[in-house]
Parts: sequence; C-alpha cells; structure tokens
Amino acid sequence: MTSSVGTRPAPSALRAAIDELTQAFGDRISLSQAVREQHASQLTWMERQAPDAVVFARTTEEVVTITNICRAHKVPIIAFGAGSSFEGHVNAPYGGISVDLSQMDAIVAVNAEDMDCTIQPGVTRLTLNEHLRDTGLFFPIDPGADASLGGMAATRASGTNAVRYGTMKDNVLALTVVTADGKIIRTGSRARKSSAGYDLTRLFVGSEGTLGIITELVLRLSPIPEAISGGICSFQSVRDACDAVIATIQCAIPVARIELLDDVTVGAINAYSKLDLEEKPLLLLEFHGTPAAVAEQSERFSEIAESFGGGPFHWSRNPEERTRLWKARHDAYWACRGLRPEAQPIPTDVCVPISRLADCVEETKKEIEALGLIAPLVGHVGDGNFHVQPLVRMDDPAEIALVRDFIGRMVKRAIAMQGTCTGEHGVGQEKRRYLELEHGIEALELMRSIKSAIDPDNLMNPGKMLDPET
Amino acid sequence: MTSSVGTRPAPSALRAAIDELTQAFGDRISLSQAVREQHASQLTWMERQAPDAVVFARTTEEVVTITNICRAHKVPIIAFGAGSSFEGHVNAPYGGISVDLSQMDAIVAVNAEDMDCTIQPGVTRLTLNEHLRDTGLFFPIDPGADASLGGMAATRASGTNAVRYGTMKDNVLALTVVTADGKIIRTGSRARKSSAGYDLTRLFVGSEGTLGIITELVLRLSPIPEAISGGICSFQSVRDACDAVIATIQCAIPVARIELLDDVTVGAINAYSKLDLEEKPLLLLEFHGTPAAVAEQSERFSEIAESFGGGPFHWSRNPEERTRLWKARHDAYWACRGLRPEAQPIPTDVCVPISRLADCVEETKKEIEALGLIAPLVGHVGDGNFHVQPLVRMDDPAEIALVRDFIGRMVKRAIAMQGTCTGEHGVGQEKRRYLELEHGIEALELMRSIKSAIDPDNLMNPGKMLDPET
Repeated sequence: MTSSVGTRPAPSALRAAIDELTQAFGDRISLSQAVREQHASQLTWMERQAPDAVVFARTTEEVVTITNICRAHKVPIIAFGAGSSFEGHVNAPYGGISVDLSQMDAIVAVNAEDMDCTIQPGVTRLTLNEHLRDTGLFFPIDPGADASLGGMAATRASGTNAVRYGTMKDNVLALTVVTADGKIIRTGSRARKSSAGYDLTRLFVGSEGTLGIITELVLRLSPIPEAISGGICSFQSVRDACDAVIATIQCAIPVARIELLDDVTVGAINAYSKLDLEEKPLLLLEFHGTPAAVAEQSERFSEIAESFGGGPFHWSRNPEERTRLWKARHDAYWACRGLRPEAQPIPTDVCVPISRLADCVEETKKEIEALGLIAPLVGHVGDGNFHVQPLVRMDDPAEIALVRDFIGRMVKRAIAMQGTCTGEHGVGQEKRRYLELEHGIEALELMRSIKSAIDPDNLMNPGKMLDPET
Repeated sequence: MTSSVGTRPAPSALRAAIDELTQAFGDRISLSQAVREQHASQLTWMERQAPDAVVFARTTEEVVTITNICRAHKVPIIAFGAGSSFEGHVNAPYGGISVDLSQMDAIVAVNAEDMDCTIQPGVTRLTLNEHLRDTGLFFPIDPGADASLGGMAATRASGTNAVRYGTMKDNVLALTVVTADGKIIRTGSRARKSSAGYDLTRLFVGSEGTLGIITELVLRLSPIPEAISGGICSFQSVRDACDAVIATIQCAIPVARIELLDDVTVGAINAYSKLDLEEKPLLLLEFHGTPAAVAEQSERFSEIAESFGGGPFHWSRNPEERTRLWKARHDAYWACRGLRPEAQPIPTDVCVPISRLADCVEETKKEIEALGLIAPLVGHVGDGNFHVQPLVRMDDPAEIALVRDFIGRMVKRAIAMQGTCTGEHGVGQEKRRYLELEHGIEALELMRSIKSAIDPDNLMNPGKMLDPET
C-alpha cells in the first residue's frame, strides 16, 4: 500500500533525460547553478535543495513531453509556480527536473456572465485581478504573496478573506492536469455543481504536485462588492477578541475579513509604521456589500465588540482610511522582522475549531514567553486559523532545535483540539511528521494507495507530503 | 487500470456469508422478500433489483464486521440510507448484502460555538433540523426528500438553496468511512479549513457507496437567518427569467433560493392547488438576512425583474404568505403527476453554465413539444441546474425508449454547453453511459484506478457509477 520513497536517479539516466529535454526544449532548459538554486525553496528554514535542471514549459503538451521523458528515465518531476510556498514544496531532495510554469501565463477566457475564467497556471493572482478589473469581478483568494494560481491550487491556499469566500477548494471549478503516465486529465466542467463521478478537482487541489502537474484552471469569480467598509478594534485580551469573533460569525454577519494581531505584532507595527495603536490584541475587519449592508454590519459588529469589552470600533467606508488601516496588516511581516533584524522569520500555521482558538492562542503565547522567543502571532480568526512567526538565528542550532520543538508542541496542541497541523501553508517537507498523528495511519495509508495508483514510481514531487522523513 | 465489473457471488459463498452474518446479527438480518424488495431502488424507472439480504447496522464496528464477512466471501455490499435517490443507487444488480444504516441515527454532538455537529449517517435532514431548532442553527441542504444525511453525502446532494449555501461537498467537514478492507478511515478534523494532505472528505462525498460506507459525519451548520423574505415573479419567457437570474447573481445579491417553474408546471400547480398564477415562466425567490438586508435585496431584485420585463415582484416577510408561495413549489411533484395520473414520473437533471441555461431550457422544451411529451421543468437556476420530469406510461416500451433517447439528447446538449450530465441526482445506474463523454476516457480511467486501489474486488456497490453497462 505504501508508495516507495523517492530515489535519486542514476547519473546516466539523469544525463539521458537532460539530453532528451535539451533536444526538445533548446534554450528553455537551464542547467545553470543560479537558475537551479532559484528553483529550490527559498522561504523556508530547511536546506535549499536545487533540481538538476529547470525546464520552462509553455503548453500542456510540453508538460506531457517532459513527463514522458522523465518517466522513461525515472527522474523526479517538481512543478514550480512562483516559489512563494513556505514548507519546502519546491525543493528537490532527490534532484530531478523542475518544471517552471511561469511562462504558461495566458488568461484563456473570461466568462463574465458565468462569473468564471479559464487560465494557465503561471498567471498570478494580482495579474488576474488587474485583468478582471473592468468586468466588475475579482478572484478573492489572497494568500498575501503574489503567488501563481497553479501553485495556489496545488497547495489549497486561502488567506485573509477565506471566512467569506472560502479557500482554493471552493473556488476552483475544474483543472487540466498532466499525470505521471503522461495523460491529460480534465477534472470537471464549467457547471457550478455536479454529481457526476469522483471529485477529481478536489483531489488535485492541495495535492502539492504529488499527483500531477496542473496546466489549466477554471476559476470561480466573485462580484466586486459595491461598498467596502473596514475597521479596527482593540480588546483587553486574546480571549475577548476570539469571543467577539465567535459571536460575529454566529450572528451571521457576513464578515469578509476578520484578522487578529497580537500585542507583539501591534507593537512591531507601531514602531515600523510610526502609529500609536494600543499595544493590545487587535481585530481588523472588512465588510463587503451594499452601502446600507456594510453600514448595518459594521454597526452590529460594534455592538458585539462592546459587549466583549472591546472598542471603540473605528470603521470607515473611505478608501484612503481603509487602506491606511490595512497597510498596518500588510506591513506586519516587515514590521515583525524589524523586531530582530539578524534573525530569519519561520512562518508556520495551525487551524482549530473556533471555540478552541482562544485556548490554543493563549497556551501558545504562554509558551513563547516561557521560552523567551520573539514570535509574533496573527490569525485569520474567522476560520480558527493562526500563524506564528518565530524569529530565529539560523547560525544557532540550539535555537533552531528549540523552535522546531515549540512548533511541534503547537501542532500537537492544535490536533488535540480537533484541529489540523496546517490551515493553509501545506505539508511540503516540514509538516510530514504530523500527518499520521492528525489523520491516523489508516487514512494516511489510503492517501498513499491513491498516490501509488496514480504515480507508481513516485516521480511527482518525491520526498514531500506522504513520504516519510528519512 | 479498470476495475473488474461486479459479479454475482457463488451460491455457496453467499450462503456462507449469510450464515456468518446471521450468527453476528441475529434478528437484525432479514432475508424476507418484502424487506429485500424495499431495499431495491424505488424511485426509478429501472428494474428493481433486490439484495440477497438486509443487515441493520448500529455501529461503525458492526459495519466493519459486515465488510469483513462480505470481503472474505466476495459478496457485494450496498449501503442503504433512506432509499430516496433517483438513479438506481441502492439496486443490487449482482445481489449481495444491503447495509441498512437507518438505525445509526444518533446525533452525537452539536458544537454550537463552532457551528458544526457530529451525527450518524441514518439521521435525516428534517430530524437534524428539528433537533437543532433551539440552537439558532440549521443544516441548509434541502434536496426535497427527507433523505438520510449519509446518503446525501454519498450522492453529493444539494437542492433549492445551494446557490447560497453550497452542496454537500461544501457542508461536510469530515467523515468516518469503512472501506472494503475493513479499515476505519477518518477523513478530516473539525477545523474549518486544512491543507494537510489529500482531500479524502471530498473524495468520499459523491462516491455513491463505491469506495466505502459512511458511518459518521461532521457537518457544517449555518445560523438561522434573522429575517426571511420570499417572493414570486412571472416573466414573458424562460430567457427573460434566466437573464434576470444572471443579473441578480452578478449584482452580488445573496439570494438564498431562486427557482424556475416553467409554464407547464405553473399550470399543474394552478389546477392542483386551486391558484390563479399566470401560466408563464415563474421565478420563486427567498432572501435570508437582517430585516433591512432582506428588504434591500427584495427591492433590488424587483428592479432587476422589471428591467427584464418581469413582474410585478410580490414579496413578503410574512411567514404565512411565504409558506403559501413555497407550498406551490413543494406541491409541484404531486401537481405534475396529476397531469397524467396513469403515468410514472421520471425525474432527471442536468446542470450548465448559467449563460447557457436559457438556451438549454429552450431547446429542451422545444423538443418536449415536438415529441408530444408531458414533461414539466423546474430549476435551481441560480446554479444553472434544472430538472425535467417526463410522465411515462411504463407499460409502453416505445414510449420508454422515446423518453430515454430524449434524456440522452438533453444530457449531450448540456455536456456540449460545458455542463454536466447530473447536477445533483448522481450517476447510479442510469447516467453511467454519459460519464466518458463528460469526463473523457483519461479522467474516467483515473477514477477507476482510484476505485481499484481502494476496492480491488469491486465489492462496494458494484454495477454503479464507473462500471460499464453490461
């Protein structure tokens, strides 16, 4: 039932594959060290593991060609979008070929009446939204980085507004995927719903390149809201803020964004952006709707916040005012880096049922204090998802070990609370060790049997997700 | 890559399995013809194919026992909920054991703060909503029948309010499933989102009992809306009605229900319920929200309807008034039967991108007229999903053949419009013939390879979905 762990190809096989790829792709294959290293995972504390070569694909058929050549020589295949993932997804621990999809960046069709579009995987979310602007539609999923949409589908990305718009699983209607056997799979139609067969779309969304390479996506779009209001609200404690979030969701207020910043993050933002926010837990909110609706929603939230000792809730429909408020949130990464400039931020995330969020955050913060870590905490709290970003000196192995253990305990705490080891960052290399605890060996073996059925030689992104750590 | 087609077990093997099951289950196994026939598909025009025995399971562990006994003797296993599916899902073309889950009807936990609940598969949706009433929450998916929630997950059910609340794929957080090898799989946590591994939940949702038996579900709940308004609006043509629907969705009006009734259905309702509705295409709508929000939404829809020549739009927040309006919709099945009392209704559905809905409905209605069929048409048009219910004399093989061909052309029309052969009824036996056309042989073979990996002997609901017609 278990898939074989990846293996490094024999040098002669690798050479043969690269020769054939060079014949097929000419100057669109690169063996240069600089290019190869750019295609290792960058935003991680793990070792950067470069592929043996990088091929820049332009069509689905070219991805078939690459796959066929690699399969014939048993060479690993690693899909590469924008390289903005955190958990080592694009590393090449067994070498192999990185398939760079950034040149597959065509917006194939926008169907405004159906509120969907068909795109190639290298299109980034900001490029898509720029293109859509005149249609009155937008693609809502916002993981922060200007990630490629193929990569976002592959990692089941979400972000600040998932509480309203869902994650990639909810916004991908269909995919075209090249599997390890070189077949082109179409996973769905443009219909909004279907009961016709297994849900292959959702199987490939979040499979992190281990089942196939996404070469086309049909995405669901949303109408740009007529009015947007944004606001900011301080609370005495993380628990009060979380209780206000629970009440907001239960009152069916269709909040579009509801973000928690802890006191450490607020302090960092104050220093970085020269603001004078109270250094207390803070909720940042956004409401989408008609002018009357967002006003009503904002007023209702204001009452809820007050009843949990929060506030006053400052809100505004003024775009400049909103931008100013959200700039603080978007600057959080850089602001937090400033807390310890010599250190590397290690972003990690978990997600718990919202009733356990305050417990999970409080226990995590208590441990951060006890260990003396500098680790700002922010959360997409409407979903029970939060991120911790310990700042770590990478030249201090003891500190790295300390932080790794801290993350392990945080993950185990989240799983014990019926949550998950990652709400949106994915498994990649670093979270593999928690999958059995979260899913149980039976479910993990079932995933492995699916992997084996689709990719029997474990050529698609080996050493990730389901493969045990070696 | 292809799974073996189901086979009828050898009589000695069947006898041995029934002996062991009788030892294990005593009076909770039934071999009576009446009970066996009740467990064949009822709401279908296909032959009723009874199982060899029916076992009433009460726990997940009992389902494991049944599965282990059946696997040892290679006897088919068919999960049975409420038997309310249309496409022959619970028929037993190769005999075998029907596993009746209706006694697994415990509501295990309701987590009001997290807006989720854990239930056994035999709980029906009306029972669940009755139980939830005091929590201020409800489970929104409404396929019409009081189906079991296990069956609704297995068939990826949806219904009138999917346009607002999604389908079962969007409202199941996690499942417990017994697979053919007798393993108990847990497919997820109670976290609202996760990026931790393959999406087994969505793989089992809609797998129609071919991959395993669902023995527990974690469901997402929604807040009961503070206010509901309902309304009714006639249009000159199906096209005008569809265009009004497209505009409504594009304007981001969060309509909770938007149903189309064609002139034939309206006529049937007038006769049945003694109403005097204009015998023209009709939209029935429902809005959920705060009192101010539903008023605003209703007014906005009214303006849209007027601009497409529809209306006047009569709407009301009065519960009796709303009930009266929706009673017409809920009576449609019986009203339509009255159009030809000697005939059997054959419910079938397709789903297309909403921009093609008017085309698909118009062409279908043209053909209904040309063939002289009596075939009322209703639609969950916010999703592009519509149902046709030809009334067929089952003693007239020529008429049955005519209607089957008519359905085949409707399905092909929907697929040619980038739609699906079934939006919510599922594949079962009858829609198998269209899967290759819809998905392509590559995707169909991929589904079969997953089936083979999980159920190599094809014991779970054989003769359905992926198995070719014989």
